[in-house]
Amino acid sequence: MAQMKPRTLSGFMELLPGPQQQMERIMEILRETYSLYGFTPLDTPAIEAADVLLAKGGGETEKQIYRFQKGDSDLALRFDLTVPLAKYVALHYGELSFPFRRYQIGKVYRGERAQRGRFREFYQADIDIIGDGKLSILNEAEIPAIIYRTFSRLGLRRFQIRVNNRKLLNGFYGMLGLSDRAGDILRTVDKLDKIGPEKVAALLREEVGLDEAQAAEILRFLTVEGDALAALEAYRGRSEAFDEGLDELRAVVSSLGAFGVPAENFAVDLTIARGLDYYTGTVYETMLLDHPEIGSVCSGGRYDNLAGYYIDKPLPGVGISIGLTRLFYVLGEQKLLNPQLLTAPADVLVLPMTADLQPAIRLATELRENGLRTQLYAEEKKFKAKMAYADKLGIPYVLFLGEDEIQDGVVTCKDMASGEQTKLPLAETISRIREGLLEKSRGPVILEG
Amino acid sequence: MAQMKPRTLSGFMELLPGPQQQMERIMEILRETYSLYGFTPLDTPAIEAADVLLAKGGGETEKQIYRFQKGDSDLALRFDLTVPLAKYVALHYGELSFPFRRYQIGKVYRGERAQRGRFREFYQADIDIIGDGKLSILNEAEIPAIIYRTFSRLGLRRFQIRVNNRKLLNGFYGMLGLSDRAGDILRTVDKLDKIGPEKVAALLREEVGLDEAQAAEILRFLTVEGDALAALEAYRGRSEAFDEGLDELRAVVSSLGAFGVPAENFAVDLTIARGLDYYTGTVYETMLLDHPEIGSVCSGGRYDNLAGYYIDKPLPGVGISIGLTRLFYVLGEQKLLNPQLLTAPADVLVLPMTADLQPAIRLATELRENGLRTQLYAEEKKFKAKMAYADKLGIPYVLFLGEDEIQDGVVTCKDMASGEQTKLPLAETISRIREGLLEKSRGPVILEG
Repeated sequence: MAQMKPRTLSGFMELLPGPQQQMERIMEILRETYSLYGFTPLDTPAIEAADVLLAKGGGETEKQIYRFQKGDSDLALRFDLTVPLAKYVALHYGELSFPFRRYQIGKVYRGERAQRGRFREFYQADIDIIGDGKLSILNEAEIPAIIYRTFSRLGLRRFQIRVNNRKLLNGFYGMLGLSDRAGDILRTVDKLDKIGPEKVAALLREEVGLDEAQAAEILRFLTVEGDALAALEAYRGRSEAFDEGLDELRAVVSSLGAFGVPAENFAVDLTIARGLDYYTGTVYETMLLDHPEIGSVCSGGRYDNLAGYYIDKPLPGVGISIGLTRLFYVLGEQKLLNPQLLTAPADVLVLPMTADLQPAIRLATELRENGLRTQLYAEEKKFKAKMAYADKLGIPYVLFLGEDEIQDGVVTCKDMASGEQTKLPLAETISRIREGLLEKSRGPVILEG
Repeated sequence: MAQMKPRTLSGFMELLPGPQQQMERIMEILRETYSLYGFTPLDTPAIEAADVLLAKGGGETEKQIYRFQKGDSDLALRFDLTVPLAKYVALHYGELSFPFRRYQIGKVYRGERAQRGRFREFYQADIDIIGDGKLSILNEAEIPAIIYRTFSRLGLRRFQIRVNNRKLLNGFYGMLGLSDRAGDILRTVDKLDKIGPEKVAALLREEVGLDEAQAAEILRFLTVEGDALAALEAYRGRSEAFDEGLDELRAVVSSLGAFGVPAENFAVDLTIARGLDYYTGTVYETMLLDHPEIGSVCSGGRYDNLAGYYIDKPLPGVGISIGLTRLFYVLGEQKLLNPQLLTAPADVLVLPMTADLQPAIRLATELRENGLRTQLYAEEKKFKAKMAYADKLGIPYVLFLGEDEIQDGVVTCKDMASGEQTKLPLAETISRIREGLLEKSRGPVILEG
């Protein structure tokens, strides 16, 4: 007698088998792509000592953190993958080789107010390159290539990687004598997309206290059209930070072609800042052009000091993060997941048609030895129910093995999509199934409009 | 200035990059093998509502559970993957097709007293087949094949899958009129391996209160030599449960050949019980023959009622579980992990030898388009330091691109293992690297004695 109504906590994604297969495929593509660029997988604990995890201060996320006692220990669930990386690099500093390139795809936890599309347990898929003391600008230049290849392999084409440089911004506000108000300005300017240049100019005057000329100059700078780099050259020579930032931005832009990033998937965007404190060089955002309302789906940047709270070594780095659970949710909502791809648990369902199951077992064994995902189905059901089972799960091929087939050394194979039925020797049947599966797995996991 | 000494909690496995690559390879083999048998991947939350997770009662594990409040919610971390499966199947009953075959490889949490080789966060790798009301014995017969293929693919040969049947045991104790003492007997008999038959007989008399004949009968039964099935036939006809269990055991044993399980990797072992309450049919253990002290590395069995606490439907099933973190730890301790396999983050390290980095970037892009995991290394270091970096990480090939190479349309490639250096066109270099990598990835992940 059931005593407890089963439920899954709100804000926790739990997928049905079909969507889970799509999610697995996306993760596999991320693992493969990150590996292609020389990143090694890491897996750190989901639980850390609370004082270690919060050494840097949790900031806005602090009250969202899952924190609890177990025995005498004050514990917390990780709320991102960056703090655990900092701990890992500091702890294992002597055993690592730098630059240290790692990827991590793992669950993180934030007790946010639950709402549609917001998750309390969610996957982040991060890559970071950590240098020991120094790190070549080439690493920053490489990041757009990784983003481009990752999203292309997933099947997306209508996306744009947007890049800015924090030194450039800081240098510019320095030129205007506004370094001390840079934070307020960045926060205001961040609204440009939403409220437009005139309202931003008004806010810069009224709330930040700039004069009309300063506000106009800032807006002219931020909304530069056409060849941004050429326009930015006009400011050169007035701020060391600005010039350095501009050189870095040039290094990033000039390498795009060699890295294989098409011009239409890239833009310099001077409005991007990515928070106030952490990033110190190139910053990245990635927009789905047909879904700007989602915001950036892959963001990050260059930072100077990964682990200052744990170790007295300057560890500069550059990294990006994909909020995978949220991205998957949005792709589903927008109907962008390719429905053609197989999500069945098996490629082949073997139906024994004889009382003696041994021939059917041997058949299944041979199919598996040939790499075909095979389910052997021996439940006592009507034939119609068995076919409905294959159909409902989307299993593409059903194999029957009766006395006739056994005697003739053949198997009957039904292609569930076309309805075509063949009666051929096993080797030939396997080749046909393999060809069919290749066809059915050809498409990308994301299919744009 | 560092303010906090970084540390990882005791009982939490955190691997260095090399071992992590081996762990990833093992997980990949598990995913592939489970998929070959028609299991679909699932991923359930690590946190559940405490009342849901503990609906069945946590038993011995209850005080080990990580349980905590967040806002008004009473939460707990999952302590196995079976209770979340029960919840999942009950919650999504109407959307699933039965038999439902799923695998899940995920972390579970138990706040045990920390000791060497015991983990508080550890991976379990589970498969289960759930029927709706009924489930064919063929599913029980298939489990040894899955265990065999999984461990073989990992590279193990010296292992034995041991099987028993709970109906057979219950039937036997019923014959002796000892049904009510079956629990005490099972607990005592479980010590057979450790203390031997004589001491077990003594305990059966002194602690369980059996007479000498009963104790002798039990020991004769449990230690049957040679053809166990033939010997068990002698008991047939005295208990319905026994006869049913014997038929089931016969069905499992008689299918082994067709399932491709060699006789030497299998044994009937009447001493296996796997706990008292849960299992109701076939039970499984898997021993590494050269490391009996580890105990079973893959265990499970048939149960009648997966989710009775959540749903008024009989959901019989059969499942097995590998304690992956512990297994990995033991394999490492026993030096069984193949040191020949690549654990480098990249196959190729590209060293630009010109001031202009564009040719080296294009080279890296082409290598990646050819599927080679490539790291582009542009840090300002001495040549010797760059080579030491490749060497320390175990990157098998280093490519140099200087003015000469660019002019001649070739690349210089150093095979780090052999020291051999070639200067060939890129296409040819790529073929040679591919062949070399194939060679270096030929071995299994586990290498016995």
